Formats: sequence, C-alpha cells, structure tokens
Amino acid sequence: MVYLDNAATSYPKPYCVIKAVENSIKYYCANPGRAGHSMAQRTSKLVYETREKAAELFGTDRPENIIFTPNCTYAVNCVIKGLAKPGCNFIISSLEHNAVVRPLETLKDEGVCDYKIADIAENDIETIENFEKLIDENTVALICTGASNVFGKMPPLNKLSELAHSKNLLFAVDAAQTAGITEINCAEEGIDFLCAAAHKGLYAPMGLGILVINCEKKLKTLTQGGTGTQSFVFKQPQESPERYESGTLSIPLIAGLGAGIDFINRQKIKNIYNHEREIVNHIYSEFKNMKNIELYTDLFSKNERFAPLISFNVKNLHSEETARLLNEYSIAVRAGFHCAPLAHISYNTSEKGTVRIAPSFFTEKKDVNLLLNSVFKIAKIQ
Amino acid sequence: MVYLDNAATSYPKPYCVIKAVENSIKYYCANPGRAGHSMAQRTSKLVYETREKAAELFGTDRPENIIFTPNCTYAVNCVIKGLAKPGCNFIISSLEHNAVVRPLETLKDEGVCDYKIADIAENDIETIENFEKLIDENTVALICTGASNVFGKMPPLNKLSELAHSKNLLFAVDAAQTAGITEINCAEEGIDFLCAAAHKGLYAPMGLGILVINCEKKLKTLTQGGTGTQSFVFKQPQESPERYESGTLSIPLIAGLGAGIDFINRQKIKNIYNHEREIVNHIYSEFKNMKNIELYTDLFSKNERFAPLISFNVKNLHSEETARLLNEYSIAVRAGFHCAPLAHISYNTSEKGTVRIAPSFFTEKKDVNLLLNSVFKIAKIQ
Repeated sequence: MVYLDNAATSYPKPYCVIKAVENSIKYYCANPGRAGHSMAQRTSKLVYETREKAAELFGTDRPENIIFTPNCTYAVNCVIKGLAKPGCNFIISSLEHNAVVRPLETLKDEGVCDYKIADIAENDIETIENFEKLIDENTVALICTGASNVFGKMPPLNKLSELAHSKNLLFAVDAAQTAGITEINCAEEGIDFLCAAAHKGLYAPMGLGILVINCEKKLKTLTQGGTGTQSFVFKQPQESPERYESGTLSIPLIAGLGAGIDFINRQKIKNIYNHEREIVNHIYSEFKNMKNIELYTDLFSKNERFAPLISFNVKNLHSEETARLLNEYSIAVRAGFHCAPLAHISYNTSEKGTVRIAPSFFTEKKDVNLLLNSVFKIAKIQ
Repeated sequence: MVYLDNAATSYPKPYCVIKAVENSIKYYCANPGRAGHSMAQRTSKLVYETREKAAELFGTDRPENIIFTPNCTYAVNCVIKGLAKPGCNFIISSLEHNAVVRPLETLKDEGVCDYKIADIAENDIETIENFEKLIDENTVALICTGASNVFGKMPPLNKLSELAHSKNLLFAVDAAQTAGITEINCAEEGIDFLCAAAHKGLYAPMGLGILVINCEKKLKTLTQGGTGTQSFVFKQPQESPERYESGTLSIPLIAGLGAGIDFINRQKIKNIYNHEREIVNHIYSEFKNMKNIELYTDLFSKNERFAPLISFNVKNLHSEETARLLNEYSIAVRAGFHCAPLAHISYNTSEKGTVRIAPSFFTEKKDVNLLLNSVFKIAKIQ
C-alpha cells in the first residue's frame, strides 16, 4: 500500500518510536507521581524528559508548561474553554478545523460567548486587516491554524501575533498540520498557546496531543481529578502541568513522542519539510499537465506559503469516488471535507470536497509514480 | 522487583497486550472514520470490535455506547459535567476518589451546583439510609465507587441503584478498581454510567478509560471537534459514540484494551479475583500476627465485601517512609493518600496515610513471601 494520508496520521512510524512504546510498557510501566518506588520514579523521569524535548522543539523555556493531552482537539478545547468568559468573543481564521469551530459553536449555543471569522486572503496585509477590523472590546484571543489541513495554506502567524499583542489579546495556534514539519518557535513567534498532535508530523502513535502554554495566563481547567500531587486536597492544584493533567497519563504514547522528537531532530525539520515539499511540488506540476484535474492552490505563488500537502479533484467525480478508485490501486488518501467546512467554503469546494495527498518523510519516488499513474488513468476516462 | 502497586496501574502487562499495541502501530495505523481506504477501514473495525468486547464485558447491549476516554478521570468528568445543571446536587459516597471530588468542588466553586457526602457504613442498610436522607428535589444522580482505592471496601451497588431509580435519579459507578477484577453487569445491576480505567484490571497500557452509557440520557459534551462524521457540519454530532469522542482516538491503546479483555476472558474474572483475594487474605492473616502493624479493615467480616487490596501502616513510621524502606527491598507499593482524602477521613488515617498493597493476576507466592519478610524486618525494629 502507498500511504499518502499522513495529514490524518503519519505512517509508517519510525522503528525507534515503536521500540520506545514497547519498552515503556515493559520497563516504564508505573504510574508517575503516584508512588515513590523506583519504577514510578524512572517513569516520572521519562515524562519530564519528554516535556523538555517538546519545550526545546517548540521554543519555550518552561517544560512544566508542556501539557500532555489526549489529542490536539482536546488541547484546542482547553484553550477556548479555559479563556471563555460570559460575553467575550474569539476571532478565528476562515481555514479553521472543526476542532476550533465546534467548541465555539457549543459555547455560542450555550449563550456563553461568540466568535467571528476572519478571511485568510492571498495577501498577508489583507489577512491582517480582516482580523483587525473584527476586534472589539470583548475579544479575548485570536486563533489561527498553522496551515489549512485541506489546502496547506499557511497564514502569517508572526503578523497575527503582533496584531494580537498590540491589542492586548492572546494568540493561539492550531499546529496539528505543522508541528514537526515546519520550524515553530513560540517565544520568537509570539505564540501564547500552541496546540499540536503527536501522531502526525511528530511520528508518535495516535492518542496524544500537546498544549504549550507560553504565557502567564492560567486557563480554567476542562477536567479535574487525581494528579498525584496535593493528594489530600479537595481542590485541583494550581501548578502546571498537574493543574491540566488529571488522571493517569499515557506513558507509552509519551515515550513514543519522545522517540518521535528524537527522530525529527536527527533528520532535521528543514530536511523533512524539503523532502515533502519536493514531492508535493512534483505532484502539483504533473497534475497541472494532466487533463481533468481540478486544483485549488497556486503552490508556486510568491505571495503564499504552503505546508506540504495538496488537495485536488478529478472532473465529474466526487472526491470520495476518486479516493475509492485510488484505494483499488492500493493508494491511501483522504477525501471529503476533512472536518474543515470553513476551508471548503473559502475555496468553493463545498459541493464535493477534495481528495487530499499528504506525504511524509518516508514517502518515496516510486510511491509518487504509482499515484501519478493511477490518477492519470482515473482522470483520462472522465 | 516485586510490583504490588497494581491499583495504580497493572504490571506486567500480558504478552498479548504488548503484541497488540505493537501490531496496531504497524498494521492498524490509519485514522478510523477519517478516510475510506483499506487501512482506515481495518482500523475502524478494530475499534468497533473492541467496543463490542467491552459492551459484553460490562453487560450492556449497545457497543455504540462504549465511549473511549483518555482515562477513568475523564469519564467521571464526562458524567458529572454532562449531567450538571444550575442548582442541582449530586450525592457521592464517603470513599470517593479525587476524580469525583475535584470536578464537583470546581462546579461548587463556580456556583453551578453542590454535592453531599453519604457515609459508607459497615452495614449496608445504614449505608442506604445515609444516601436516602440526603436526597432532595434537586438531586440528579448518586455516584459511588465500586471499591475504595485505599481500603478495598465495596459499597452495596445493587441497593444504591435501586434507591436511585426508585427516586428517578441516575446512578453512576467509578469502577477504576473493580473493572476486570469483579464481575460487573450494568444491565443487571442498574448502573446507568460506568467509568473504568483500561490500565488497571483490564491490563491495557496507561492512557485509556471507558465510559459505558447504559441509559437513554444524553450527556452534555466536555469537548467538541472533528469526529470524522458529519464533517461539513459546524455542530457536534448527536450520535454516540462520536458525540463524545472528538479528535483522534488512541488506536494502539484501544488495541491493547481489546487484547486485555481477551486475556481476562481467557483467565476468567472469577479466577483472577480468587487468586488476588487469596494473596490479600494471606497477607492480612500474617499481618495480624505481626507486631507493630496497623490494619484498618476486617477482611474476614461477614458483613463487608472487599476488592483484593489492603492498606496498612507500621507503627511509628509514616506510610511514605515504610514504602521507601520497602523499595530498598525491591518492593513497589504506593503510600500516602492515594488521591482519596475522603476515604482517609472515613478511616481515620488522615495523619500519615497508608501503605497500599495491590496484587495482580501475575503476583506469585515468592513475591508475597518477600513482602512479608521485608515488612516483618521493618516492623520489628520500630
């Protein structure tokens, strides 16, 4: 099988990740912070070291502000619900995933707060203006994706962060599609909250997300419970990370994340990005020359930046049908709406969704050739 | 190392569990419900089969009402916050873990709702009376642990369920300490919501919990986001399980849980309980004959039922110090308050906590002998 669905979850995982998960179940299998015995202490150390690795990767100097969550969606919910207060509003981009939209819709339905959508334009200046004009005295934060999970478009995070801070607002980034693939430095880029998935560009197994809190703001907590600290106290502890991590953590997946970060540090993010980007560029160029292929972005535009993924359609075919046919050629891609209706509204693809191709560091030239040949065969008979 | 901290997390894990996790990362590594390709479908099937196994294990006929959560604490938060409405109250037992107490304290601090604590007495009739007299017109649910995580005491769930339903209230059980160790049948026992940890008696790795919804009540959701279903819709889907499972699920841990359930089905819960209970009974008998040992329960009482774990102290030693000394003998136990202050208040152990011994199916006679010899040596010099 040729797997090109890495924006949903990366596959294969590096051997070191699989080994780290296995070892953690065999040798780091005590509940950290819940006991003082040797295995519990060894497990605590593993968890703390992984916090340190993630802090270094994401450019924040406080490992205790690396919060492990069950997934990126939970991290986004933590930020939104942790900041929401009656009458406030959030401004989000027109490319956000349902991980951002659905919690906000829920808060809106409950009459707690509102949200407004700023169009991401081709031109960065226009994008900033679109955000700026929506800000009012009740706005608490701007939320923007690092890259659209459907079209790869990367909004101008630096400028959005400047805008947010010039208005005393907080700035949160959904890095589900960029963590491990593009360089992210929360301190330098002025990102107050970064939400990431461990199982995509960071090559960990599914079931783990990361919330980086790179500011002084304390979030209200989404869940409360045993933290192994202040065990006799009825109230949730105030200290990070325990404040945000109630109940038992997923040690095997945290071990896998540590190994995944080691892997990308060895390969270097720049090389990973370049490898994936070359593949996407090649596919894009070939698609441009094929009949009956619909494309939605100008990957070679000088005004725009893109994460290494590409959405397309075959004329007269629903995206799901194209994906089904590709599956018959043993090619795994995702089709449909990718849990991102806003992005489809922005790019006028609401009717049939798109087929998304997302390579990884492990994607090879022969994989791309099979894809191109298969798409060619499917498209030529339409 | 002799590991007797199985009430925090079980160790070792059965080989089939480790293998299932490894295989899932190698062969079931697509995001289920997010694509139609073969590996995504194969992964979806694995997830659904695990729901079926859990439904059968816990005596509910609706696999779609088996909700996978990051841990048991999250499942408990789902129930409490999913039911809470302004002005309501919950009645909980005097043995509850902070997973129950801290969410309720948070809601109380926010002025949303209140909770009352019913004493678990030695005598079941008295226990039921203690709950009954606290019920008022604003009570929405009774919440009770399946067994105290500190003292093993098992409250009369059947009678509490009868009481709850006779008053049109919902009944929720925290089965963190009993799932996989005692038989649980939600339908027969009238349990509306069951919260379980996968990594204790069910032998899965850490990072997974289960919420069984065995009633018609729809809970408000704690998080919202992409579910892979109704991808173009801004609102959270209404259907279970998607409604409660936003973002990517932990496939490796779900695979591990499936293997863990297979393991306990092969060994049979009755045999697992008997094995662990025999060990605990033996330790208890030996402790009774040792000098300077403080015990808190009468394990052989005819009026009480206990899960297979035991709390003790050595006279003149803090529980943490005893555990530290046992660690020097290569014995892993947990000491302190076990995130359950209410239980320590009930048993008058608030001053120094307790040392807890929790065996598993894998605990052997030689492990117990080392424990007994070590405790004897520590206790005799006090």
